[in-house]
Amino acid sequence: MSLVLHDLVFQEDRRPSPFCWRIKMALAHKGLPFQTNPVPFTGIRDLHGGAYPTVPILDDGERTVHDSWAIADDLEARYPERPLFGSPGERGLCRFTEAWLFTAVFPLLLPMYVLDLHDHTLERDRAYFRAKREKMFGHTLEEASAGREKKRDAARASLQPARMTLKKQPFLSGEQAGYADYIVGGALHWVASIGTLPLLEAGDPLVDWFERLRDLHGGAGRTSPTYALVG
Amino acid sequence: MSLVLHDLVFQEDRRPSPFCWRIKMALAHKGLPFQTNPVPFTGIRDLHGGAYPTVPILDDGERTVHDSWAIADDLEARYPERPLFGSPGERGLCRFTEAWLFTAVFPLLLPMYVLDLHDHTLERDRAYFRAKREKMFGHTLEEASAGREKKRDAARASLQPARMTLKKQPFLSGEQAGYADYIVGGALHWVASIGTLPLLEAGDPLVDWFERLRDLHGGAGRTSPTYALVG
Repeated sequence: MSLVLHDLVFQEDRRPSPFCWRIKMALAHKGLPFQTNPVPFTGIRDLHGGAYPTVPILDDGERTVHDSWAIADDLEARYPERPLFGSPGERGLCRFTEAWLFTAVFPLLLPMYVLDLHDHTLERDRAYFRAKREKMFGHTLEEASAGREKKRDAARASLQPARMTLKKQPFLSGEQAGYADYIVGGALHWVASIGTLPLLEAGDPLVDWFERLRDLHGGAGRTSPTYALVG
Repeated sequence: MSLVLHDLVFQEDRRPSPFCWRIKMALAHKGLPFQTNPVPFTGIRDLHGGAYPTVPILDDGERTVHDSWAIADDLEARYPERPLFGSPGERGLCRFTEAWLFTAVFPLLLPMYVLDLHDHTLERDRAYFRAKREKMFGHTLEEASAGREKKRDAARASLQPARMTLKKQPFLSGEQAGYADYIVGGALHWVASIGTLPLLEAGDPLVDWFERLRDLHGGAGRTSPTYALVG
């Protein structure tokens, strides 16, 4: 059966979901053909009788798997060739890489880009998005993103562990891209999809790495519109 | 030939070097018997005609290997059983783990513990240690460590990616300890060897993890004196 990935969609067919990006890259890594089904935030509950609150959701016509880790593990079990995780230890360290991203990087990026996210959501999603995020922040999206140019240095600095690694090797996972690259790449895909303020500086090793990553598997990382990451 | 690891020694046979700890744990992981040769800072230049500026140095009677990464790779090549890196991607992510430690964690720990380090060096190393570190800091060791209790919260927070990971799995590398655990464990060995201010709080998942790590391979992580990490 053909694989369908339900993928969050914003205006102009922008696809910011970092969790869906992991899976798009993972499917391409394994050479598995797939289609995406673009879904608004407020449309996720219309899928599968509202069984799943978030994307990614992967359907193969017989089975449905929800959640990026569950999907990655399921793909690995069913399609063991071209592994995402070369060893159990590599999978373990992908968890660590994700934990770093969630604790040290995303908290700095989210206020910088939350208003851009809002402005690029589909009309039908705007009120939902604003209410959810303003409740999380405890203030308006405009207040969260105010002075974001001044926050950029700290956000760039938070990426220093990845930058240092890429001075020694072409990918975070070494000579070849692995799932950890797709995890961290997902964060940059998320920024690039909606970010009107360029995150990175020219010459940053992360820029070259992200270009390499997007080129992989026949340009699997270049299937939807982006802004420039460098400015 | 029997393996000899030249290992930095402080007072009371304390062994703080985080780089030597990686290798002690790696040798134990592979089940390779070894002895350590305790070396003062100012004694490293007396080894092998001064060929190496730092420890670890591993001798097997025929060959000498210097630098923790070179040693780990050499051990892996010569003793492939019980691998340190289950896959090339796992090795790549060990580099990332180290980069995180160097950029996000050690810069916060060093000022907190540099005076403790100094106070525990051998008499013959003190002037050398103070001069080298004060040049690095641009001020005295006493100034660097002043008010360190107030810096502890930030140091604890810097470890959050590891803490979050250990809420999902027993080791950073997953179900089993791998080289990334020995890399991060080395930082805690370093603190525990000389730190008179406990770094961690009771109940921190890092505490249980470090105890598990020290118990591995017949208590390979408990071969020299430590202070309590929790207080």
